[in-house]
Amino acid sequence: MVLKSFVEVDIDSHFPLENLPYGIFIIKSSEQQQQLPHPCVAIGEFVFDLSVISSVGLFNGPFLKDSDCFHQSSLNKFVGMGRPAWKEARTTIQKLLSVDEPTLRDNAILREKSLLPMSKVQMLLPTIIGDYTDFFSSMYHARNCGIMFRGPENAINPNWFHLPIAYHGRASSIVVSGTDIIRPRGQSHPAGNSPPYFGPSRKLDFELEMAAVVGPGNELGKPVDVNEAADHIFGLVLMNDWSARDIQAWEYVPLGPFLGKSFGTTISPWIVTLDALEPFSCDAPKQEPQPLPYLAEKNSKNYDISLEVRIKSAGQEQESVLTKSNFKHLYWTITQQVAHHTINGCNLRPGDLLGTGTISGPEPDSLGCLLELTWNGKNSLNLNGLPRTFLEDGDEVVLTGVCKGDGYKVGFGTCSGKILPAQN
Amino acid sequence: MVLKSFVEVDIDSHFPLENLPYGIFIIKSSEQQQQLPHPCVAIGEFVFDLSVISSVGLFNGPFLKDSDCFHQSSLNKFVGMGRPAWKEARTTIQKLLSVDEPTLRDNAILREKSLLPMSKVQMLLPTIIGDYTDFFSSMYHARNCGIMFRGPENAINPNWFHLPIAYHGRASSIVVSGTDIIRPRGQSHPAGNSPPYFGPSRKLDFELEMAAVVGPGNELGKPVDVNEAADHIFGLVLMNDWSARDIQAWEYVPLGPFLGKSFGTTISPWIVTLDALEPFSCDAPKQEPQPLPYLAEKNSKNYDISLEVRIKSAGQEQESVLTKSNFKHLYWTITQQVAHHTINGCNLRPGDLLGTGTISGPEPDSLGCLLELTWNGKNSLNLNGLPRTFLEDGDEVVLTGVCKGDGYKVGFGTCSGKILPAQN
Ligand SMILES: [Ca+2]
Ligand SMILES: [Ca+2]
Ligand SMILES: [Mg+2]
Ligand SMILES: [Mg+2]
Ligand code: NI
Repeated sequence: MVLKSFVEVDIDSHFPLENLPYGIFIIKSSEQQQQLPHPCVAIGEFVFDLSVISSVGLFNGPFLKDSDCFHQSSLNKFVGMGRPAWKEARTTIQKLLSVDEPTLRDNAILREKSLLPMSKVQMLLPTIIGDYTDFFSSMYHARNCGIMFRGPENAINPNWFHLPIAYHGRASSIVVSGTDIIRPRGQSHPAGNSPPYFGPSRKLDFELEMAAVVGPGNELGKPVDVNEAADHIFGLVLMNDWSARDIQAWEYVPLGPFLGKSFGTTISPWIVTLDALEPFSCDAPKQEPQPLPYLAEKNSKNYDISLEVRIKSAGQEQESVLTKSNFKHLYWTITQQVAHHTINGCNLRPGDLLGTGTISGPEPDSLGCLLELTWNGKNSLNLNGLPRTFLEDGDEVVLTGVCKGDGYKVGFGTCSGKILPAQN
Repeated sequence: MVLKSFVEVDIDSHFPLENLPYGIFIIKSSEQQQQLPHPCVAIGEFVFDLSVISSVGLFNGPFLKDSDCFHQSSLNKFVGMGRPAWKEARTTIQKLLSVDEPTLRDNAILREKSLLPMSKVQMLLPTIIGDYTDFFSSMYHARNCGIMFRGPENAINPNWFHLPIAYHGRASSIVVSGTDIIRPRGQSHPAGNSPPYFGPSRKLDFELEMAAVVGPGNELGKPVDVNEAADHIFGLVLMNDWSARDIQAWEYVPLGPFLGKSFGTTISPWIVTLDALEPFSCDAPKQEPQPLPYLAEKNSKNYDISLEVRIKSAGQEQESVLTKSNFKHLYWTITQQVAHHTINGCNLRPGDLLGTGTISGPEPDSLGCLLELTWNGKNSLNLNGLPRTFLEDGDEVVLTGVCKGDGYKVGFGTCSGKILPAQN
């Protein structure tokens, strides 16, 4: 069954009434001085300004009636309110935008105030990210990296099948889709006994990931039960975890990735809620060995989200598809990630970001980064005639993600970034 | 030469007029409802409320006159203003508290409003910490850990002498001195082929560290020059990077420490400024091989800060000294840390925390954690008759740090935390 809005929504749009992803926008080159960022949802080619709807009292349910959560410049307050508030917001917005509901449909002034063409707005980061964690949850990615660096015998480290491996990432350098990425400089080390050299990264890569946005947090010292973890996840975004493989290779022993990652991480502006993704849920892969009890969930769920990475090189008109993968390939679920992250008492806070790790699939054309696709630069890709191992200056990388429903799509839009040359 | 205040300051106090460390306090069990946190400096046994001084217009220099930086509930705004504002604040406060200056000395009402006994206030975290990074800058610590886990042949990984190794830490679980630490639970792995087990950590440890508090940040993509890095550091705090060695050992390959660290990190409430530490600066150790140009500084500076760790076990009256070390043992300087952290374009933000890593010295009684002091639990310590390898429930660990001047001290107070039993 397809929901119908009075706002025109193309059949291929990522943003029908079934989706309603949340974001933060400002009006571009506004006439009004000091235009503040506001929460919104996407509908077709429009953003729907929730601060306007809240101001006129149309959020009249018990959780949202007296809340200023839609008068904030980030979504942190709203995502921290939890599932009952999210449900109430979704029901209210679906009703207000429905073709059968006259409140907005028949009120031209309110429509004009609340529905703004996407071309007139700029999207910002949806939440203030207190901490960002990146997991390593694709078995295919873990295995390929292991084969490349340690050989096929010890491809996957023994701990990998027992716990969702992760590291703390850098929150300050997370940027929203569309932000240019400056090629990082740093130390690298050629093979053998030669000294390290310094310069712009020669092995700049993307990583196809998604990330969970934390809803209500947990108190320091109080773990989240794996079977209640879904209530702590507001939704998902697309994420490109840009990686400088040469910097990373030289620095990461023994304390993990640092400057090879922290020069920039791009996320999509739209958070698609777990409620919108629910029709696309599917069984997660069977886990063997069986995880320890704190990771064993009654209902082990993934989502069927088709992912694609395209690249457009400087001077080329055409994009090339680099890879096609799917969120459902992940071995460790996002609820297991939350349970593991908090089992030691670590506190998550609303708006925190939990990256999945590179989402590689089983096939050679479903690998989630150039490291795997070119086997660490050994095999060139062919981009409409141009050879490519790692990213070149001017390359624009575009991630997309979409769930295909019966007569509609629930999508994430795009997550893109262009490589600028290293500075001085 | 010793500066003299009209506030009585004991000769052994950490907080004479030469120090003036910054913190954030609230009044304990305040009669006033909704007492807000305020910036202050410490003087003797008092906190000096800077919001009061600002309100009456006594910060009358060009940088602070019209600023609301002392009407914030964190120091982020003030530390972000940079050295000229810090100098102005220091000069103003030293003058106002001087025995020769009548403004405050002869105004009983203003004195009572602005000078509060430390016993009546509670100290909070001094800044909102956007990101927390932990370095690994003591050669003695790196070598000891290497010998324990990889043997004496490969004790220090080849990259260590070329760059200040670091990892991203968890910002959400940083707590202020005096906060109890709940023993974390998690996965560990005994030797051999047995499966991992789950439970409370059996190898809970402290790490004696200090941390730099970032002042003005840098823009994403714009590295900080090593010779200008000191202008980006407001001051130092004491830090205890609590560590669960069993959890850490099982999880850390290949992405570094995660849950073995993120259950809690304790810092002292007082930030001692680099200006106050300047009389105690000393040459940093000679570096061999010479670092790459971006890390080569004209003036390679450490500080002579005596550090001590004491422990008090449940049921014992007496504290035992566990170790005595010194900040000057660090191989990589805090300015090199800033230059390295930003060389890839990573942006630091005001209030960010850069931990030094465990500060071990060359002697057996100057090692900065129980892992080293007991050689991974092999050698018991004797705490007034009690044997001890790792931390037990009820143990309270107290870090102190102090610079010894001629007739005065510039100190950090204490950084303490007590271990509570694991939950359920
Ligand atoms: Ca990643
Ligand atoms: Ca540490
Ligand atoms: Mg990144
Ligand atoms: Mg810690
Ligand atoms: Ni507003």
